[in-house]
Amino acid sequence: MTDQRTLRVAMIGHAFMGNAHSQAWRTAPYFFSLPLRPELALLVGRDAGRAAEAATRLGWTESSTDWREAIARDDIDLVDICTPGDTHAEIAIAALEAGKHVLCEKPLANTVAEAAEMTAAAEKARANGVLTMVGFTYRRVPAIGLARQLVAEGKIGDIRHVRAQYLQDWISDPEAPLSWRLDKEKAGSGALGDIGAHIVDLTQFITGDRIVELTGRLETFVKERPYPAGDTSGSLGGGGTSVERGPVTVDDAASFLATFSSGAMGVFEATRFANGRKNAIRIEINGSLGSIAFDFEDMNVLEFFDATQPAAVGGFRRIIVTEAEHPYVAAWWPPGHGLGYEHGFTHQVVDLVTAIAEGTDPSPTFADGLQVQRVLDAVETSSETRTWQEIPQ
Amino acid sequence: MTDQRTLRVAMIGHAFMGNAHSQAWRTAPYFFSLPLRPELALLVGRDAGRAAEAATRLGWTESSTDWREAIARDDIDLVDICTPGDTHAEIAIAALEAGKHVLCEKPLANTVAEAAEMTAAAEKARANGVLTMVGFTYRRVPAIGLARQLVAEGKIGDIRHVRAQYLQDWISDPEAPLSWRLDKEKAGSGALGDIGAHIVDLTQFITGDRIVELTGRLETFVKERPYPAGDTSGSLGGGGTSVERGPVTVDDAASFLATFSSGAMGVFEATRFANGRKNAIRIEINGSLGSIAFDFEDMNVLEFFDATQPAAVGGFRRIIVTEAEHPYVAAWWPPGHGLGYEHGFTHQVVDLVTAIAEGTDPSPTFADGLQVQRVLDAVETSSETRTWQEIPQ
Amino acid sequence: MTDQRTLRVAMIGHAFMGNAHSQAWRTAPYFFSLPLRPELALLVGRDAGRAAEAATRLGWTESSTDWREAIARDDIDLVDICTPGDTHAEIAIAALEAGKHVLCEKPLANTVAEAAEMTAAAEKARANGVLTMVGFTYRRVPAIGLARQLVAEGKIGDIRHVRAQYLQDWISDPEAPLSWRLDKEKAGSGALGDIGAHIVDLTQFITGDRIVELTGRLETFVKERPYPAGDTSGSLGGGGTSVERGPVTVDDAASFLATFSSGAMGVFEATRFANGRKNAIRIEINGSLGSIAFDFEDMNVLEFFDATQPAAVGGFRRIIVTEAEHPYVAAWWPPGHGLGYEHGFTHQVVDLVTAIAEGTDPSPTFADGLQVQRVLDAVETSSETRTWQEIPQ
Amino acid sequence: MTDQRTLRVAMIGHAFMGNAHSQAWRTAPYFFSLPLRPELALLVGRDAGRAAEAATRLGWTESSTDWREAIARDDIDLVDICTPGDTHAEIAIAALEAGKHVLCEKPLANTVAEAAEMTAAAEKARANGVLTMVGFTYRRVPAIGLARQLVAEGKIGDIRHVRAQYLQDWISDPEAPLSWRLDKEKAGSGALGDIGAHIVDLTQFITGDRIVELTGRLETFVKERPYPAGDTSGSLGGGGTSVERGPVTVDDAASFLATFSSGAMGVFEATRFANGRKNAIRIEINGSLGSIAFDFEDMNVLEFFDATQPAAVGGFRRIIVTEAEHPYVAAWWPPGHGLGYEHGFTHQVVDLVTAIAEGTDPSPTFADGLQVQRVLDAVETSSETRTWQEIPQ
Repeated sequence: MTDQRTLRVAMIGHAFMGNAHSQAWRTAPYFFSLPLRPELALLVGRDAGRAAEAATRLGWTESSTDWREAIARDDIDLVDICTPGDTHAEIAIAALEAGKHVLCEKPLANTVAEAAEMTAAAEKARANGVLTMVGFTYRRVPAIGLARQLVAEGKIGDIRHVRAQYLQDWISDPEAPLSWRLDKEKAGSGALGDIGAHIVDLTQFITGDRIVELTGRLETFVKERPYPAGDTSGSLGGGGTSVERGPVTVDDAASFLATFSSGAMGVFEATRFANGRKNAIRIEINGSLGSIAFDFEDMNVLEFFDATQPAAVGGFRRIIVTEAEHPYVAAWWPPGHGLGYEHGFTHQVVDLVTAIAEGTDPSPTFADGLQVQRVLDAVETSSETRTWQEIPQ
Repeated sequence: MTDQRTLRVAMIGHAFMGNAHSQAWRTAPYFFSLPLRPELALLVGRDAGRAAEAATRLGWTESSTDWREAIARDDIDLVDICTPGDTHAEIAIAALEAGKHVLCEKPLANTVAEAAEMTAAAEKARANGVLTMVGFTYRRVPAIGLARQLVAEGKIGDIRHVRAQYLQDWISDPEAPLSWRLDKEKAGSGALGDIGAHIVDLTQFITGDRIVELTGRLETFVKERPYPAGDTSGSLGGGGTSVERGPVTVDDAASFLATFSSGAMGVFEATRFANGRKNAIRIEINGSLGSIAFDFEDMNVLEFFDATQPAAVGGFRRIIVTEAEHPYVAAWWPPGHGLGYEHGFTHQVVDLVTAIAEGTDPSPTFADGLQVQRVLDAVETSSETRTWQEIPQ
Repeated sequence: MTDQRTLRVAMIGHAFMGNAHSQAWRTAPYFFSLPLRPELALLVGRDAGRAAEAATRLGWTESSTDWREAIARDDIDLVDICTPGDTHAEIAIAALEAGKHVLCEKPLANTVAEAAEMTAAAEKARANGVLTMVGFTYRRVPAIGLARQLVAEGKIGDIRHVRAQYLQDWISDPEAPLSWRLDKEKAGSGALGDIGAHIVDLTQFITGDRIVELTGRLETFVKERPYPAGDTSGSLGGGGTSVERGPVTVDDAASFLATFSSGAMGVFEATRFANGRKNAIRIEINGSLGSIAFDFEDMNVLEFFDATQPAAVGGFRRIIVTEAEHPYVAAWWPPGHGLGYEHGFTHQVVDLVTAIAEGTDPSPTFADGLQVQRVLDAVETSSETRTWQEIPQ
Repeated sequence: MTDQRTLRVAMIGHAFMGNAHSQAWRTAPYFFSLPLRPELALLVGRDAGRAAEAATRLGWTESSTDWREAIARDDIDLVDICTPGDTHAEIAIAALEAGKHVLCEKPLANTVAEAAEMTAAAEKARANGVLTMVGFTYRRVPAIGLARQLVAEGKIGDIRHVRAQYLQDWISDPEAPLSWRLDKEKAGSGALGDIGAHIVDLTQFITGDRIVELTGRLETFVKERPYPAGDTSGSLGGGGTSVERGPVTVDDAASFLATFSSGAMGVFEATRFANGRKNAIRIEINGSLGSIAFDFEDMNVLEFFDATQPAAVGGFRRIIVTEAEHPYVAAWWPPGHGLGYEHGFTHQVVDLVTAIAEGTDPSPTFADGLQVQRVLDAVETSSETRTWQEIPQ
């Protein structure tokens, strides 16, 4: 590994996503033969002490409180953005202008305008060989990769139905405290952008198709919540809540009907109020030749119905997606030895590093992220105006 | 049983529903202690020979080709309507005016106007002790009855989400032939009225709430189909298809977003194009205290999540709804010895006969059926106008 | 139906099995085209009043307190034995000698000696065209029939493993009262004969093979139980228990390792102490070309793994056994409209009546029942002697 | 982390287990606060080139071809043995005598004699503060930890049944080549020691009880197999097979009936011939107050039946074992974001390092491993002698 070229990474943010990305940067080289060796060079956080602690804990060489330092340094090749959505555009555009590759967490931005600016900057940078990627990591779950393959190989036929739900329950309790994820300024939207974005991306990825119009509805069930204990700033707090309450300014749940360009009917739902559903990303696709079904709560499995089989032996088969033939799996363990949530991030690193080494576009690019943003924006507009909205293509 | 008062039944129609109703009329007295003894007196069909054969096969004493005979005869107490929707209004109103109780298959009628007329006739007849019921038989599946109980007892709390799908695949193949169920004149609508009606009724029944507004979309994926072999009339044919094709005039699939009067968000989908799903009536309800989930493909099971349990031992529990404590079950078999599709019809007979003997309204009445019809009508209007529609209450 | 030959049935016993058999005799002619029309002629019970009430309730023309009356009457063609095992031999042999066909509930008898006498009587009667059948009704669940077909067609290949469990929990509570089923005199054995017999029969039926040797262990976890309230006779009582206790003289659970003649390894377990398992008949068979798995708690489903499929799309498929192509199903409802526990009894009547009309042996015969009895006996001997036992073939 | 004491590790072997252990040593410090910092100091393999390559690939500082070097070096604190079972005793005893802590893969040894020697050496070393652990890693799957907790808290009551299967299918095809795992000299036994050992350990761990007697049967279905291409030495080869065949000297499958000291009945089965089952570790435990069920193919789930709940709402609940309250989970991701196979190894490192720092015995020790070995030995003896065997305690 010693004479291998390195890819020096600066990561901005060190919360949930920062933790997951760190594990991916650390782990990818041990299981995959990467053309570039990632170096966890610099970790950026708002608070010096906490950033330094996080750098040590997560395996980064240095820490800083200023993301501009990452941009300014010559020895940083890639900026990995793991901060809330309101900061994505500024950081990403600066990084691209400085010639850094950018991996940006989803959703790409909090508004279409920002996402469009980022995409424009990405296109400009692309001319200089600078690449972008949005962190729709669930694409890299092997079962999702297999779903994409089955559709691409024509095993599902013409797609008639796309049915997607992303169900969580972590704020089902009205006394769950406020956090930045419930603040429109920081998060852009609620369930829609946080988790709805994933099922928009996943269904478009699996079908290889795009949503062209939709009608939707957002709802906020609990309009006010307690601030976290000892903190009225709305940050994601620790244990306990304050007696003081503040407004929830984002949606608790989103639902929408959609049409794909093929004419397929889409039905989407994202919520944090589905009691008992912890991280249920459920996707079912029905086509003229077969169907597929997935639920992230059983993430190593893809269900597949092959309508060309005789009726007497037809049925959804439960494919345990842990065979060497399945996407990404050969690098890991024998059949039946399942992967976990974090492996999608590792696969993302593998695909990104490979694309950078080969000079090809990673998938999904900022342009893909912008299109998802337009879908989310259309849901918001549709919910406000109670009309169908077309998605600009 | 000899000195028991009888309830003499005339049934109109002897296809799929006539078969299921006959089994119910025959079976109910052997498992339940009924206050009235049903007599399978008269079976009416369009063709004399086939009606006579059906009467013998299904256990009816006499047969006729004229439903007006059933109305005219003094010795008929109840008319059971199992014909396509276009004939419901005429038969039901005549029967009610003649003082016969009426059990009418769903959907109540093909149009709101007809359903309203039927409901008006039912209200008039009600003053004379004549009763009506619509055949939303799935209400009588024990797992559905238990779901209703859990909601009514407050175990689910405030309902936030209602998620309902009715998925079949029997015309997924574009070469499946035309039948009366694909003819708007006879069937009124397609997936919407045939199966969508059930999930509208079931979710309103379980929640004890009503849909107040919706936006929806209908789709016909396959616009033309072959006529059944040797038959261009569009009747439900036997094997084989003709080379000639005719138009499909109903929807293949329906989807809609709905709001319940409580504010709960509803997402509905009904289709006959979900390859591999045979009769998947799926209902999931998320409330502030818990959730329930049902799938008719595993009809003896209700899943229940109790959010008041400690997180460490929380999880959806798979209740096998075959305990003596469960609705209707004590009359049947020991725990774990499941019931089948037809049992819902038997339970329907039990509830109807009991209501007639007690002079109370069966549930659901024609008025309930009219409300479901209004929801279906709103979906059609919404699909045409691409607007949200309020449901007149 | 009027000029159809009849088959006049006398049924002995009117408890759980009598109820299930009655429903089958009543229902079979309405769904299947039978060559003989069953008449529910005579019901026999120990108590005159209760027998008369049961006859009315279950649809039998007459009742009696003496099973010898059924034997003596010329107008009875078939005797259906639904009593505890200690009475089977006497009744069955008398019936056979009187030229009556006999359907006998399982297990065939309480001892091998009795079962052998019954089989000898059956063979003698067979020469005169008199037929016998043992009521291993689960063979007639469509999913089991499909399992048998798949094995017979070679889809599973050479069988290596047979894994069978019959799990219930109805006496898991040590305070559950004594009943005849816990009395060795009446029941012969406990879980072994009551439910273990079923999985012995089912696995031999599905594989088309026989157990040739085994080693086993019986256990009685709760050695004493309260008598039912107001009853120290050990009969199956109603609510409540007495303070007085009596001994449990049968096994609570049985387990055994077995070898089939093909060399396949069998692992069997039957218990009434598996808390939460209500009627879990679980069978899994692994062969060189595939596997099948069944659980009666989801009785309309057979799981099938086809090892000849490419690994990337391999997986157990969940076949909903409700297609017209599946055994017995064409007579019932459309795909996805499941059957229940009682349907197996109806199919048993169909197969029995057909065999009688055709003069062919029904399956399973008394000889088959005797072989199952020998397996059960070997388990008891093995448990006592702690040795492997061969099954006389 | 800088002033933290280190724990310098030498690992012997770098195949499947070496890979999994390396990932655990690398990852544990990033998610858990460890009292000692593991250093991946030395990797030992038979071939110099391959060992050097593996050291680079897996993150070890140095490599060697002689495990004695690891023993001889003063700067090695712990020896991690990932070689086939025939080498365990020699390496482990030498390491213990040299004062190194030892983590040894399971099964502890190929014979009871060796395991007993190792345990004696471990006890001697224990007096000097040197510790031992056997790598029964599945104990550290959070769902298994929760199962143990539920039993220990009395939620299951008195245990009556233990039902355990370990099902794989990787040599179901008779043309699968020979490997060291099919060679008794190297592997000691086949399915019995390789996978059966795990379910012996897991069930004893969960119940907190021990097997005291058993009767069992081993079977080798395929007696001869092709050598791997270009290799007649029986080593685990790459693609292709030779035309030459060699004998399979271990069992393909094992089954046994067992008694626990509490009187609970155990039924065990381990096989590599269960077509379609990839890594199905299935454990079900039935007690007087409840039941638990686990299947590694859905490893983040534990099913739990609580018999103290009212029957009407009773059912196995599907606990997704990803809550912060669950064993090991707080260190990882939010609810519903599942873990994978390798996490058990990471947890093993955490527990081992913690025990070493605290000077307490890790679990399971060599003594625990010896007891498992005695159970495996009893199965072999029982299979040969066809008798029940007591396990020396």
